[in-house]
Amino acid sequence: MTAAHDSNIRPGRGHTEGDFAREEVALANRNSGLPLEALRYDVTPAGMHFLLVHFDVPFVAAADDWRLDVAGCVQRPLSLSLAQIQKLPQKTLRVTLECAGNGRANVVPRWQTQPWDCGGVSTAEWSGTPLRHILERAELASHAVDIAFHGADRGFDAGREQFYGRSLPPDLAMHEDVLIAWSMNGVPLPPQHGFPLRLIVPGWYGMASVKWLRRIEVLDRPFDGYQQVDNYVYRREREDKGTPVSTMRVKSMMVPPGIPDWYARNRTVEAGPVELTGRAWSGGGVPVATVAVGVDGVWTEAVLERSPSPYAWFRWRYLWNASPGEHVLACRATDANGETQPLDPPWDCFGFGNNAVQRLRVTVR
Amino acid sequence: MTAAHDSNIRPGRGHTEGDFAREEVALANRNSGLPLEALRYDVTPAGMHFLLVHFDVPFVAAADDWRLDVAGCVQRPLSLSLAQIQKLPQKTLRVTLECAGNGRANVVPRWQTQPWDCGGVSTAEWSGTPLRHILERAELASHAVDIAFHGADRGFDAGREQFYGRSLPPDLAMHEDVLIAWSMNGVPLPPQHGFPLRLIVPGWYGMASVKWLRRIEVLDRPFDGYQQVDNYVYRREREDKGTPVSTMRVKSMMVPPGIPDWYARNRTVEAGPVELTGRAWSGGGVPVATVAVGVDGVWTEAVLERSPSPYAWFRWRYLWNASPGEHVLACRATDANGETQPLDPPWDCFGFGNNAVQRLRVTVR
Repeated sequence: MTAAHDSNIRPGRGHTEGDFAREEVALANRNSGLPLEALRYDVTPAGMHFLLVHFDVPFVAAADDWRLDVAGCVQRPLSLSLAQIQKLPQKTLRVTLECAGNGRANVVPRWQTQPWDCGGVSTAEWSGTPLRHILERAELASHAVDIAFHGADRGFDAGREQFYGRSLPPDLAMHEDVLIAWSMNGVPLPPQHGFPLRLIVPGWYGMASVKWLRRIEVLDRPFDGYQQVDNYVYRREREDKGTPVSTMRVKSMMVPPGIPDWYARNRTVEAGPVELTGRAWSGGGVPVATVAVGVDGVWTEAVLERSPSPYAWFRWRYLWNASPGEHVLACRATDANGETQPLDPPWDCFGFGNNAVQRLRVTVR
Repeated sequence: MTAAHDSNIRPGRGHTEGDFAREEVALANRNSGLPLEALRYDVTPAGMHFLLVHFDVPFVAAADDWRLDVAGCVQRPLSLSLAQIQKLPQKTLRVTLECAGNGRANVVPRWQTQPWDCGGVSTAEWSGTPLRHILERAELASHAVDIAFHGADRGFDAGREQFYGRSLPPDLAMHEDVLIAWSMNGVPLPPQHGFPLRLIVPGWYGMASVKWLRRIEVLDRPFDGYQQVDNYVYRREREDKGTPVSTMRVKSMMVPPGIPDWYARNRTVEAGPVELTGRAWSGGGVPVATVAVGVDGVWTEAVLERSPSPYAWFRWRYLWNASPGEHVLACRATDANGETQPLDPPWDCFGFGNNAVQRLRVTVR
């Protein structure tokens, strides 16, 4: 299957293998992956947090005029200023967010869009107010069945003009840990992370955490926005109705040991004891149970350090006695539900949810 | 010319056209381009500042143990702590930095490395001490002819193991505006921008501003490090000795008007008056003289707003009366030395110094 074969469906875009189109590279330049050495930080420094922006980063010079509107099936429609929202009870949560498309570049054939290899994951401390305080003030009508969240970022996808929008069912939206956040790592949200307000849905892939949040719309029917029912959906075939993408799948990653080559990023490691380390996480608040480290196909359990937050990655470490030569390193996490990372990418038509084990080839000298 | 033709010279890497190799995409994911809508900010918010990291971002948990050593042809070798350096006279400068490889993806054939389209430029406020205060304390020997600056970032390039290193001639190093910086936009350097100390060489392409600065080596001969004499050199042919890359060439860029398509980034603009705006800059402290805006090949002079710093980009703006249909927009700067942006990319074997005019196709509705 090649891009050319699909050109009658979406011109210039499709499934492909091998080399990457200019559009994919332009997206990789615009969006930002976590450099994997930054897995060393419990909390990712803000400028290294991965970033996926569907349209343009809205230019918001100051937050004074920003309003968050709550409308639809509510008793009391609201239009709240940032100052009003900041008077509500506050909460800070450490949350690992992963892009649902992280790892997409390793799914064959590859759907042409942001070509994540493995950098689409990071952890931050988000501060804000539980969304429920706002919803309780507005008071949902009894016939409310879905709640849509609309950002200020606007553009086209697949020919459909839209503000970025996603929805949550009311019971999830009322969960104490779903936040309307105005702060990241202790400072106001940077523009690219949603200034002045964004949603944080811990345990879910990043697409649920709507940035530049401007409007909450309570609906008496399921939200049918593009990002909800067309884009972020697992499908075996393009025509499938499919299953909505939701919580993160269990996954782990390793800090590449040794030193890199600039272009190919090949790693050179000194022989002797080497501490391999990395992070592991799962979705929906499910803790990681074990991480195994693979050296040339032989798996050994790593030491796992619990995270202080149910929503943040765990650190793992393993002392490897590196002998000269070529080696293949890997890590594989299993969560408390018994879910384990697959050895090969699970097939998804658009490359969502790829939680296959990461493999890293190193040269020990 | 294709990558395959070059494989006997540097395996798997060479000149190519068209689609991009996985290694190029991996670099685009790791490194970060300025999203062009962020040209609206006089000072780029730190997390949107472009980022090129040759090897890994060094992990520096705290700056307490950091030492900057000054050695070689000096009367008094030094080993300075961050606290000692921060007691020296302080200075803050607003500086536009551009990666020397910015625009490389538009040079045909393209050398395979970080495939910048046009996002490798940004502006920040850097605070530190003029380097000369440290050099005066060390006192250069009379036979000093070059000064090398070594970072803590280490790896291989073209098979050569190295710490990232660059040099400056003594007269430039003693210039009041060459800084040893510890702060970016009013806060300590983020890890990825050189924490705890970096060099800032205003007016030069970014490769001169060595990050994670650890050692200054005063030499009685020209520095022959890889990044100085092999990598950052303008060459017509690969075998040429070439000319060192130094100050930035005159250039301008435009905030893409309207709203984008997610994948292709095509722009849709509403008919009527549209303020086109962007930035223009040159190197070596030379001010921008004029910016012309091109609409379908017809050039008109834009309004230019001077920058408060001789080293920072100027804002320009132009009111365009957009009529429905397809249009090609462009901008073209000329500096006070009379240097003008070329209409097409100047040839360079490795894609350095591409300051060709940016062209943007938009649909007005």
